[in-house]
Amino acid sequence: MEKSYPMTGGDGPCSYSKNSSLQHEAAERAKSSLVGGIVENLDIEHVTSLNTFAIADFGCSTGPNTFIAVDNMIEGIIQKLQRHGYSKLPEFQVFFSDHISNDFNALFANLPTSPRKYFASGVPGSFHGRLFPRASLNFAYSAFALHWLSRAPQELGDPSSPAFNRGRIYYPNAPSEVGEAYAAQYAKDMESFLGARAEEVVSGGLMLLLIPGRPSEVSLGPFFSLLESCLLDMAAKGLVSEDKIDYFNLPIYSPSIDELTTLILNNAHFSIARLDQLPQMPIIPLPSAKECRAGFANIITEHFGSEVIDELFDRYAKKHAEHPVVSAGEGVSSGLFVLLKRN
Amino acid sequence: MEKSYPMTGGDGPCSYSKNSSLQHEAAERAKSSLVGGIVENLDIEHVTSLNTFAIADFGCSTGPNTFIAVDNMIEGIIQKLQRHGYSKLPEFQVFFSDHISNDFNALFANLPTSPRKYFASGVPGSFHGRLFPRASLNFAYSAFALHWLSRAPQELGDPSSPAFNRGRIYYPNAPSEVGEAYAAQYAKDMESFLGARAEEVVSGGLMLLLIPGRPSEVSLGPFFSLLESCLLDMAAKGLVSEDKIDYFNLPIYSPSIDELTTLILNNAHFSIARLDQLPQMPIIPLPSAKECRAGFANIITEHFGSEVIDELFDRYAKKHAEHPVVSAGEGVSSGLFVLLKRN
Repeated sequence: MEKSYPMTGGDGPCSYSKNSSLQHEAAERAKSSLVGGIVENLDIEHVTSLNTFAIADFGCSTGPNTFIAVDNMIEGIIQKLQRHGYSKLPEFQVFFSDHISNDFNALFANLPTSPRKYFASGVPGSFHGRLFPRASLNFAYSAFALHWLSRAPQELGDPSSPAFNRGRIYYPNAPSEVGEAYAAQYAKDMESFLGARAEEVVSGGLMLLLIPGRPSEVSLGPFFSLLESCLLDMAAKGLVSEDKIDYFNLPIYSPSIDELTTLILNNAHFSIARLDQLPQMPIIPLPSAKECRAGFANIITEHFGSEVIDELFDRYAKKHAEHPVVSAGEGVSSGLFVLLKRN
Repeated sequence: MEKSYPMTGGDGPCSYSKNSSLQHEAAERAKSSLVGGIVENLDIEHVTSLNTFAIADFGCSTGPNTFIAVDNMIEGIIQKLQRHGYSKLPEFQVFFSDHISNDFNALFANLPTSPRKYFASGVPGSFHGRLFPRASLNFAYSAFALHWLSRAPQELGDPSSPAFNRGRIYYPNAPSEVGEAYAAQYAKDMESFLGARAEEVVSGGLMLLLIPGRPSEVSLGPFFSLLESCLLDMAAKGLVSEDKIDYFNLPIYSPSIDELTTLILNNAHFSIARLDQLPQMPIIPLPSAKECRAGFANIITEHFGSEVIDELFDRYAKKHAEHPVVSAGEGVSSGLFVLLKRN
């Protein structure tokens, strides 16, 4: 059974909508590539033949990043039309999709009001399965969501497996079997994601994925090291049980470019229009305590109980103050820009 | 500005999802007409030419009635196809639409799981305006939602107007100007509803409206009389101000068959496939305290404050125990079944 751990809903101080600036900056860095990618790769006949242009964002959370991204996509389409001398626009229908437990009430309350260039809709469910009718989407988008696995690999919690992940919550610094189990789960999840989207995206349609990835051959470093180290500190003080840490693994993975390319080519329904690394800064901020909490409070609560949350993120905030950034060379994940076209 | 007063969300004891049995029974009585109306009026070529059959429910609230209705619609379409020897079904995409303040999280959590015959989506916004792209819907549905006006007529709160509605919260027993102000607001709202749907429903598509109406020439009676009388009792005891009652009017109206027919014909984009009264029982239950609270707690809270709610509905429950039903002859609204076809 697939589990879902939504970003923290609402718009309070711990909410995702107030604590998603990292994702926002990465999407901002991707904006010109997005607009350019659309102008370059969208077939003009594809757009002009449509009354309605349907866009879906997979893993939209509660905004505002999804709204900014949608505005950018529409800007790209309008630029494409203008370049070919068309002034009449299709109507845009935008589907904001995320897990059923996502806070759609907050998403809808955050929706930009007029002038909004599109009809808005929310679609609940896992993007590892079908969410839309066949050939009903013209543009599929997913930003910083596909690193979430449908679940942590089962072997990690099996003491008899070489991939048993004792004393860690993730794969850096783990035996190679742990990383391989993560990679295998990622491959399976991407297979279902791409398989479902291949049915939903119409021939000639585009799909843009922004994916936290890693340069090939670099093993992933310190992005969640503060979180792991806080949990281990708390275990040492008896505030959480060590045993519980042995069975807790973040269901998150960042593929290398080669790995991702292979998975896309295996699907065979999409061609790669563009796949490259987003510009990366030499110094990268680690997620703040609030950002980390907005993303992970739900999954941590489920495993460790809600009573650990305040203490954990107080500790996190202190460590973060001492160690707020890493350098790119330390193996932090970098955004991959993946523009695909449905054959 | 249009205001919205959603049904009480969630699934607690005071929620709409647990207190909508009146609507449920009326929809049950409409089921065979719904299935029969589809079989009789849907063009078989219309269905067989589609990959996706798009259904929208306007005013869906949080379920479960909307899910039952959608299953009935799909059953009607399948029967139609089978009767003509088709075994291949289109894929169904269902849009559940209601005000932005509707509890979509509860709606999505209540969604039936497998086997579900359709892809589900939520669409937030007022059905008095456009919510969908042009010609994108094959079947529009609205059950017991169109009696909600976009607002109470403004004259009702104007002491200088002959329609000033002092000491009442509704139009029965009011001067004729009050009823006329209600009728005028209803006409305006239906005009915008039908205008928006005419753009969204594709030619050959159907629209089914279940509307609380009244037999022509009968003025509407006691459906909200318990609520009015409880508020007046509380005013007499100084628990709510009389002044506040003078400026509170339920934004609800039930048209006669003649009135509704005229409004539909004025629009000119729909033909009437069928318009008649749903079978009515001789004795009709008045809404219980819980049902009335699920529907009206939000609007009453906004005007009178949340502190009156418990007392008001305690009083309501007592009156209801003494007066739980009315006879059809007393002028209670009756359901109208309105099946339209887009020209």
